[in-house]
Amino acid sequence: MNKTTLLHEGKAKKVFLTEDADLVIQEFKDDATAFNNKKKGSIADKGVVNNAISCRLFTMLEGHGVHTHFVEKLSERDMLCRKLDIIKVEVVVRNIAAGSLVRRYGFTEGTVLAKPIVEFYLKDDDLDDPLMIAEHAVALGVASMDELAVLKSRAEAINDVLKKFFADRKLKLVDFKLEFGRHNGAILLGDEISPDTCRFWDLDTDEKMDKDRFRFDLGGVEDAYSEVQRRVLELD
Amino acid sequence: MNKTTLLHEGKAKKVFLTEDADLVIQEFKDDATAFNNKKKGSIADKGVVNNAISCRLFTMLEGHGVHTHFVEKLSERDMLCRKLDIIKVEVVVRNIAAGSLVRRYGFTEGTVLAKPIVEFYLKDDDLDDPLMIAEHAVALGVASMDELAVLKSRAEAINDVLKKFFADRKLKLVDFKLEFGRHNGAILLGDEISPDTCRFWDLDTDEKMDKDRFRFDLGGVEDAYSEVQRRVLELD
Repeated sequence: MNKTTLLHEGKAKKVFLTEDADLVIQEFKDDATAFNNKKKGSIADKGVVNNAISCRLFTMLEGHGVHTHFVEKLSERDMLCRKLDIIKVEVVVRNIAAGSLVRRYGFTEGTVLAKPIVEFYLKDDDLDDPLMIAEHAVALGVASMDELAVLKSRAEAINDVLKKFFADRKLKLVDFKLEFGRHNGAILLGDEISPDTCRFWDLDTDEKMDKDRFRFDLGGVEDAYSEVQRRVLELD
Repeated sequence: MNKTTLLHEGKAKKVFLTEDADLVIQEFKDDATAFNNKKKGSIADKGVVNNAISCRLFTMLEGHGVHTHFVEKLSERDMLCRKLDIIKVEVVVRNIAAGSLVRRYGFTEGTVLAKPIVEFYLKDDDLDDPLMIAEHAVALGVASMDELAVLKSRAEAINDVLKKFFADRKLKLVDFKLEFGRHNGAILLGDEISPDTCRFWDLDTDEKMDKDRFRFDLGGVEDAYSEVQRRVLELD
């Protein structure tokens, strides 16, 4: 399968059309951005690492009955995917308080939530991806109430699988962002699952092993990404 | 009934304890603030107007089976109320897009929503009253899921009554904020209902007749408040 036209260039990936109208190729870049593009940089080999991690996780999730856009890993940086009509909702699942939960509501970082919280954000860079309730999404026409209920239950099921997978690899899954899309009448998990889109803390030391090292200039960014890759790929 | 100790001074009202442990007196001030205290000023006789409007609306709502903290109007600026354990959730009901719906999500101002939207905000000035989903409120311990369901259905019922009441007075009820509190095992509507807490647009001209005139320096603030008072009180 070959790339034909560039369909879309995002902050961390390019998406190309292919000869098959039903399939696209996601090419993972090393570009790193944070705070909605206000901080920009690059993380060496991030694209290679995130593609490897995402391919492994999508394969694993499919094995647990989660339908994803993943078809196969084509090369170090390229993932073959089903073409989605992306739902403009970023679905965030939180197990432990961090990030905006601390900033917006005053939670103490590290507080384990009694129940995971699923949040919806409007996927719109110009508006800074604002938090919304389901009713906003419906009024904006980005998704139906039924679709949003599917996204929520899908996100909860994925969280159950991922939390166990990462705990086995000595990583706490603090929170993560998912994107979904429509494909032939079904809703599939899209995008990527990587240290760009998840917060991982080491199970024993609580050391941050994700994009927060880049966001807050904590150093050791590449090492953290490689270590996550090692733990995800080595233990099968 | 007499004021004893000042219990709390808010941006627009003082609340006093009385000789009866179950009752408080709300004293309405002329102070006006906007944008969470970043803009401050005063609106002549606002306290008198808002007390009059609120007393009339609470009485009317009680007549429609809505339980409120209102007991009686004591004087121009004083309202006798049941003492509430305030729930730290600001409940906003929206019928027409304005304010943060326009700023945060890009709605066109004036768009009539297909269904009213009920939002919850954390009542916390230090955090700038952030929007939250029910799960945040529960995790923060400010309300139970059952209480939040009551707030939502109560707010929807109040909206139905108020919309009709104001339409009869040639005012569009664009959106409004409610606060509720616990009292002897029940949940009562508290605070006030006035041009400080509602957006009113003239039914024919769409002229703004509420605190937006103060927020955005549109002039004619006192006239707008008086005109709302006139329409609310004169037509019985």
